[in-house]
Amino acid sequence: MNGESVDPWALRIAYDGTELAGWQLQPKSPTVQGLIEEALAKIHGVPGRGAAVVGSGRTDAGVHALGQIASYRPPTPRSAETLMAGLAALLPESVRVLGVAPMPPDFHACRSAIGKLYRYRIVRRPVMLPFEARWAWHLRGPLDVAAMREAAATLVGRHDFASFATSGGQSKTSVRTMTRLELLERDDGVLDIAAEADGFLYRMVRNIVGMLAEVGLGRRPASDAAAILAAESRSAAGMTAPARGLCLVRAHFPERFSIP
Amino acid sequence: MNGESVDPWALRIAYDGTELAGWQLQPKSPTVQGLIEEALAKIHGVPGRGAAVVGSGRTDAGVHALGQIASYRPPTPRSAETLMAGLAALLPESVRVLGVAPMPPDFHACRSAIGKLYRYRIVRRPVMLPFEARWAWHLRGPLDVAAMREAAATLVGRHDFASFATSGGQSKTSVRTMTRLELLERDDGVLDIAAEADGFLYRMVRNIVGMLAEVGLGRRPASDAAAILAAESRSAAGMTAPARGLCLVRAHFPERFSIP
Repeated sequence: MNGESVDPWALRIAYDGTELAGWQLQPKSPTVQGLIEEALAKIHGVPGRGAAVVGSGRTDAGVHALGQIASYRPPTPRSAETLMAGLAALLPESVRVLGVAPMPPDFHACRSAIGKLYRYRIVRRPVMLPFEARWAWHLRGPLDVAAMREAAATLVGRHDFASFATSGGQSKTSVRTMTRLELLERDDGVLDIAAEADGFLYRMVRNIVGMLAEVGLGRRPASDAAAILAAESRSAAGMTAPARGLCLVRAHFPERFSIP
Repeated sequence: MNGESVDPWALRIAYDGTELAGWQLQPKSPTVQGLIEEALAKIHGVPGRGAAVVGSGRTDAGVHALGQIASYRPPTPRSAETLMAGLAALLPESVRVLGVAPMPPDFHACRSAIGKLYRYRIVRRPVMLPFEARWAWHLRGPLDVAAMREAAATLVGRHDFASFATSGGQSKTSVRTMTRLELLERDDGVLDIAAEADGFLYRMVRNIVGMLAEVGLGRRPASDAAAILAAESRSAAGMTAPARGLCLVRAHFPERFSIP
């Protein structure tokens, strides 16, 4: 059977990125892609990258996911039950496959994706609980959330986000449409930032959160957001927020694809 | 200054026990008591166990805490601010001190404790999320929660809990008063078991949860709970639930003690 002739399958994956070197395959470090390809190769009984998977987006080392979507063309037929049981048994607890499903022939987890939702978590309390430490950035000191919201509003819409892209990405254009950039204050001292766009540049969410944090801490005015955007240069923006606070919550696809 | 002549201080401590060898000091493994004593010795500038701490209870390796209470007699005077800042800087992120306060002369975190509340968390979903894996027991298969509740109700009240005590504890009597043993079903497939008593024997919560799980899985009837209790022998009960699901939520003290 030719790998290109079979229909692709989609996988929904959650992972704790703390001890992983990110999504993308690396020769010597454990990555989500590498662990899943290794498990699938065993399940399908094929050598090497006989079951190569592609992800909806490449998350960095330390970044988490609740709903990463991946796709691959099964080199041998396997039922959903066999795949789920095999992946559950072969993957570490830090990487869990939540669902699998056969997809139409043209489905591709990266090329078919039309948007993504990320969540960035900040703990504002004087002490961050051990239970939160793996998934949040501890930002002490009072935060001016109103100013952060003002800056965030500037970024919503269609813009050239070059100032918020770390070099090293592979995008042709740095124009993206940010449909949502919301700050959700919880009663328990957690501040969640929801970022939704048709696509994200390399480290874009973390660079935006870094700027918002500087605004919140009073180190720059909210009006800087517009100036940074207009500069279209990474050097205009500020710090990059740490990876641990970031989580890929969902990838969006056209409705005709029934994602598991 | 003589260590015995100064008033004790209390500390409220949260920890992720996953990578710790439990509360109690051990020569070669990292323990909560060991890490805190080491940090306090540095803060007070004293050698060895010059700042020996006592905990309200000794949690096992892998067990967590949201509200462990400890006490010690400061060998040198330090403000609450100095202690909090020093402990935050010196302890790993997996061990956090949430508050400190000076206490009346007779306060002792272990001897003054009049009760404790533990939570045991079970994930019943087919897949346990990576975010839950450190704090929960993954128990697949349908659970008869009604039967578990019936068995739990049998244990509430004053009983000899010898059947639920693993040998190795240091208690004189195995009679305890269980004031609460409640199963809380959450919408998201999490089952929390709240266990509150005037004291707990060695591994008592985990042994009770192990029995409740066997009842829930249909391996023994709910009526076994009464028989096990009456047998007053550990061999009458069943499995011990894994440490990772257990968390010391609160320690109770007489009202005259204002715990931080």
